Amino acid sequence: METLQPAPRNPAVTADVAVIGAGIIGLGIAHEARRSGRSVVVIDPAPASGATYAAAGMLAPVSELHYQEEDLLELMLASSQLWPGFVDGVQSAGRGTGYRTTPTLAVGADAADRRAFGDLRDVQLRLGLEIQALPLREARDREPLLSPQISCAFDIPGDHQVDPRRLAAAILESLGRHSERDRSWVTGAEDGFLMNSSASGLLWEDGAVAGVAVADGTRVLAAETVVANGLAAAGLEGLPEELALPLRPVYGDILRLGVPRHLQPLLTATVRGLVRGVPVYIVPREDGTVVIGASQREDGPSSASAVSAGGVYQLLRDAQVLLPAVAELELLECTARARPGTPDNAPLLGRVRAGDSGTGPDGGDVPGLIVATGFFRHGVLLTPAAASITVGLMEGRHDERWTRFRPDRFPNPHRSAPATISAPATIKDHA
Amino acid sequence: METLQPAPRNPAVTADVAVIGAGIIGLGIAHEARRSGRSVVVIDPAPASGATYAAAGMLAPVSELHYQEEDLLELMLASSQLWPGFVDGVQSAGRGTGYRTTPTLAVGADAADRRAFGDLRDVQLRLGLEIQALPLREARDREPLLSPQISCAFDIPGDHQVDPRRLAAAILESLGRHSERDRSWVTGAEDGFLMNSSASGLLWEDGAVAGVAVADGTRVLAAETVVANGLAAAGLEGLPEELALPLRPVYGDILRLGVPRHLQPLLTATVRGLVRGVPVYIVPREDGTVVIGASQREDGPSSASAVSAGGVYQLLRDAQVLLPAVAELELLECTARARPGTPDNAPLLGRVRAGDSGTGPDGGDVPGLIVATGFFRHGVLLTPAAASITVGLMEGRHDERWTRFRPDRFPNPHRSAPATISAPATIKDHA
Repeated sequence: METLQPAPRNPAVTADVAVIGAGIIGLGIAHEARRSGRSVVVIDPAPASGATYAAAGMLAPVSELHYQEEDLLELMLASSQLWPGFVDGVQSAGRGTGYRTTPTLAVGADAADRRAFGDLRDVQLRLGLEIQALPLREARDREPLLSPQISCAFDIPGDHQVDPRRLAAAILESLGRHSERDRSWVTGAEDGFLMNSSASGLLWEDGAVAGVAVADGTRVLAAETVVANGLAAAGLEGLPEELALPLRPVYGDILRLGVPRHLQPLLTATVRGLVRGVPVYIVPREDGTVVIGASQREDGPSSASAVSAGGVYQLLRDAQVLLPAVAELELLECTARARPGTPDNAPLLGRVRAGDSGTGPDGGDVPGLIVATGFFRHGVLLTPAAASITVGLMEGRHDERWTRFRPDRFPNPHRSAPATISAPATIKDHA
Repeated sequence: METLQPAPRNPAVTADVAVIGAGIIGLGIAHEARRSGRSVVVIDPAPASGATYAAAGMLAPVSELHYQEEDLLELMLASSQLWPGFVDGVQSAGRGTGYRTTPTLAVGADAADRRAFGDLRDVQLRLGLEIQALPLREARDREPLLSPQISCAFDIPGDHQVDPRRLAAAILESLGRHSERDRSWVTGAEDGFLMNSSASGLLWEDGAVAGVAVADGTRVLAAETVVANGLAAAGLEGLPEELALPLRPVYGDILRLGVPRHLQPLLTATVRGLVRGVPVYIVPREDGTVVIGASQREDGPSSASAVSAGGVYQLLRDAQVLLPAVAELELLECTARARPGTPDNAPLLGRVRAGDSGTGPDGGDVPGLIVATGFFRHGVLLTPAAASITVGLMEGRHDERWTRFRPDRFPNPHRSAPATISAPATIKDHA
């Protein structure tokens, strides 16, 4: 059957908010914007198929400290506290998210790993974080399949998890309810839909960002445009010339495994281990599967989704050191993706100072533009905070604590005017 | 567009040969039968998706001796000699098969592996097989990425390879040319087609097998029916009551990997290794990828295609011992399948002695029925031999050398009459 009468073309769509990117960050922002009463259009040719698709979904501000990013701690803790409310909002639509408040066990393999965890614990306690050493016998009472050879164990009750694929699917479904409609519908409050196409660039009007040009020819006109397309953000046409988004891909491999019935439950807690100094984690999912991750490599494979044989080998090797039964699991999936890293491993989140092209007073921000990318390994944990901060900016609320993450804090290497280099954008400049 | 006039149903299809099973054995037989001037119908709901889909495709009678199946050697060598002609026949249709006559290197990891290879070599030389010890320096000159720590190397020039997926696709395509036609066409010599459906059982007429009842309701009437559906053969309805097909699944994991440009070619020869007594092989394909296999386990996972985490770990570990650069490869695919094993690890190949239900003289064979299954790890190597022997049987040629593989050589445990047990079917009985 053919449609004899083509639907009328809609060259322009109007919404309160345009979000470029349907990874977990873009989707979280879209969700929060709709909760605030705004209509939203999300633009992504392949929703939730990037780093979100790989992510294990640990909500672990305490054990993430391990990676020496103390500057991020305040943001991670704030986001952690937002999670229960954020999940309630998504789940009220009736879809599960795999959110679990089961604890995390930190486990070391050898004496050097025990010393490393001990040093870290001193830092964690000094910062007021909740972590408690567990006698090995107690750890193995709680998780009988842990190797008897582990060197130390710590209980971290506040580090939880979510299933990023289910969470993204739940938010996408709430957008999808509107995606089949005629696009001109998307003008009412709380309305939203997904455009399965690429953003080809930002639209400008009178020195302000006015929306998004979409590859399929549509123009999305919006009061606020959020650039949340991860690594691709740096290549978006129409960003302010002065802006550098120094994103780099940090590749990682991650495994999904099935647990045979006689080994269920394999674990009740998430296990985060150090094995001869290398981190590995094992996350037990609600559906009885487990996730083992994640390698971290900056070498460029043939594509972002190329799985490293060495990465998979190392994950299976180290996970078996902590939990020998891993050898008996069914390998369901090996996935690799690139995380968007930044020079200081902190996100690029906020408004952008207007340069020559802006209409605002010198030092003012570009109206209509918010950047939210560069979340590296912390995208899932930081989603509620990113969503809350972004919608706060739309409502004129600026939280001084987060200006240090402004996306214009790095000098643009392609603009070599001495003034720019000697006075790079810093927190103070924008306070 | 709808087809307003449904095609007339054909409750019966007539062909010279019906082949149940489109794995490499069934396809090879179908190919040979058509070359002999017979029309063929192949019946399989999922062609080339079982053990054939996993197989590495080594054509290696010499290095396969390692597995202590000397009884099979004569058949393996005979099949090996048939390969060039068999491949020519398939390739004449213009499709590639990945057939390569590059040599095989046998490589040991440690001193015990060297001793094991040395013992094996004595046997191989005594049997007149071509194998030559290589100085380690020469082995590494030929394959510079081999580990400097290997303990021994042997050149086996007669062990080659084919790509089973490409070979199966080439034969399927030649069948497929006819599969869209009206089924009544399939009566001419050399004609053939594939029915994408299950065989529900054998059809009998006057004590002879007269064809196949297909799950979609069709009856395939054929002068000869070949049972070549691997492990599923044992469950086929309508087999002679007296026949036991003692097939068991032997699971295996196998990996496909991509080689980054700077490591190409990773290898020029196929490498077969022993690493602390465990066999592992690395097969370089024409397209620049490599195949690493294969684990062997008889424990039952949740399904035949469930990949074992421990199996994948062991393959990656042992392959890296021989070829450290494996860590830098891209893991493209982890696959597991079940091979059809038998009590003596030899195939079930030939006609079946008629019992009470047969019309032939006592001790005669069931007319119209040939069994070809149980090829275990050797299905690909033995395909031309299986095809040649099967078509020979159709033409009344019996080769005494192969009667030892008759499918009725095992007693049926469910028929406990003493006569059957005290006089199990042996080679002599049928000679």
